[in-house]
Amino acid sequence: MMRMRCGDSRIAGCQFTLFPMSDNFATIILTALKEVDTSKVWKDTDDVSTCIRGKLVHVFDVTRAIFLHAAKTGEHAAMSGTYSIGCPGDSSGDVLMSETDVVLNQQNSQSIRQQASCKFALYPMGREDYMDTIYEQIDLSQSQGVKVSGSHYATRLDGDVNDIFRTMEEAFENVQSKVSHVTMTFTISANSPSTK
Amino acid sequence: MMRMRCGDSRIAGCQFTLFPMSDNFATIILTALKEVDTSKVWKDTDDVSTCIRGKLVHVFDVTRAIFLHAAKTGEHAAMSGTYSIGCPGDSSGDVLMSETDVVLNQQNSQSIRQQASCKFALYPMGREDYMDTIYEQIDLSQSQGVKVSGSHYATRLDGDVNDIFRTMEEAFENVQSKVSHVTMTFTISANSPSTK
Repeated sequence: MMRMRCGDSRIAGCQFTLFPMSDNFATIILTALKEVDTSKVWKDTDDVSTCIRGKLVHVFDVTRAIFLHAAKTGEHAAMSGTYSIGCPGDSSGDVLMSETDVVLNQQNSQSIRQQASCKFALYPMGREDYMDTIYEQIDLSQSQGVKVSGSHYATRLDGDVNDIFRTMEEAFENVQSKVSHVTMTFTISANSPSTK
Repeated sequence: MMRMRCGDSRIAGCQFTLFPMSDNFATIILTALKEVDTSKVWKDTDDVSTCIRGKLVHVFDVTRAIFLHAAKTGEHAAMSGTYSIGCPGDSSGDVLMSETDVVLNQQNSQSIRQQASCKFALYPMGREDYMDTIYEQIDLSQSQGVKVSGSHYATRLDGDVNDIFRTMEEAFENVQSKVSHVTMTFTISANSPSTK
């Protein structure tokens, strides 16, 4: 039980936490988890975070939808997490790799217009040329309809939540097509009173 | 501005966000940042996160103290972030590497007793044997006075906040002595109503 458990197949996953900065945090989290259709991912929630696993397309569909449902309350809400694919380890949720690619929450997510700011970082594992791989993908981000800027240890994206998640998904998708084990950390924040 | 900016020297850093799940979040964040002595680290805060950089010992001293000051309010508070060392890039804060190792917040931090739960993951970069390096360090965690358990994509630590940060600092310190570029993600949570 000391070791990290991950997956043998091309199953993707995300370990994330939703943070509504509100006295009403519990209701916002539970409502977001209830409103989002998670039937195409394996899901496990404890007091620190939620882990979902499944096809990459569904992992992004679900995380985007959960954040949007929290952000649309108008409260200051943030989400931090790590996407992962190709981590050597266990097999929970592998059965979900036989699901179709039809996403369950996109229509609902697309109907929500929400500005946000995000910092993300890609970590291609086990490769000596990892910095080149990172830079190749970050250059790709230029054309995604979001404002891209540099930051310490991360790349910053500003724009609509749907565009931000699409940009991250494309970067992650591209890197994982070339590198077996990739992780990507992110923190996305909406309705912050500090945003200029 | 598209690229991630990091450091050339053995300067360490942490990009983190403090999340008080409370209507009072702004005051809690500002008070925590004010109460903690950050004079031995370079610091930059925006609407998404705070980045600090300096000697590894001070980066951990400051992040631990900031989390403790938020958690001791009794509100449900969490912090997510990524520690990094040896990332090829820029040099902001390099001057702070000449500071002594005398930590400024330890006495205050040690006086606060606070239980928390944390998930962390180590990422030794640019190495084909990264999984072995991770497992070596995670085995070390057994003797740190915290409860260690496995989790998807992460290792879970339960215990006193000071012990949790000491365990993470020792694991990070050990890996960075063998691998040039290392990152470590973490999410720590206190006063959660979900904790059994």
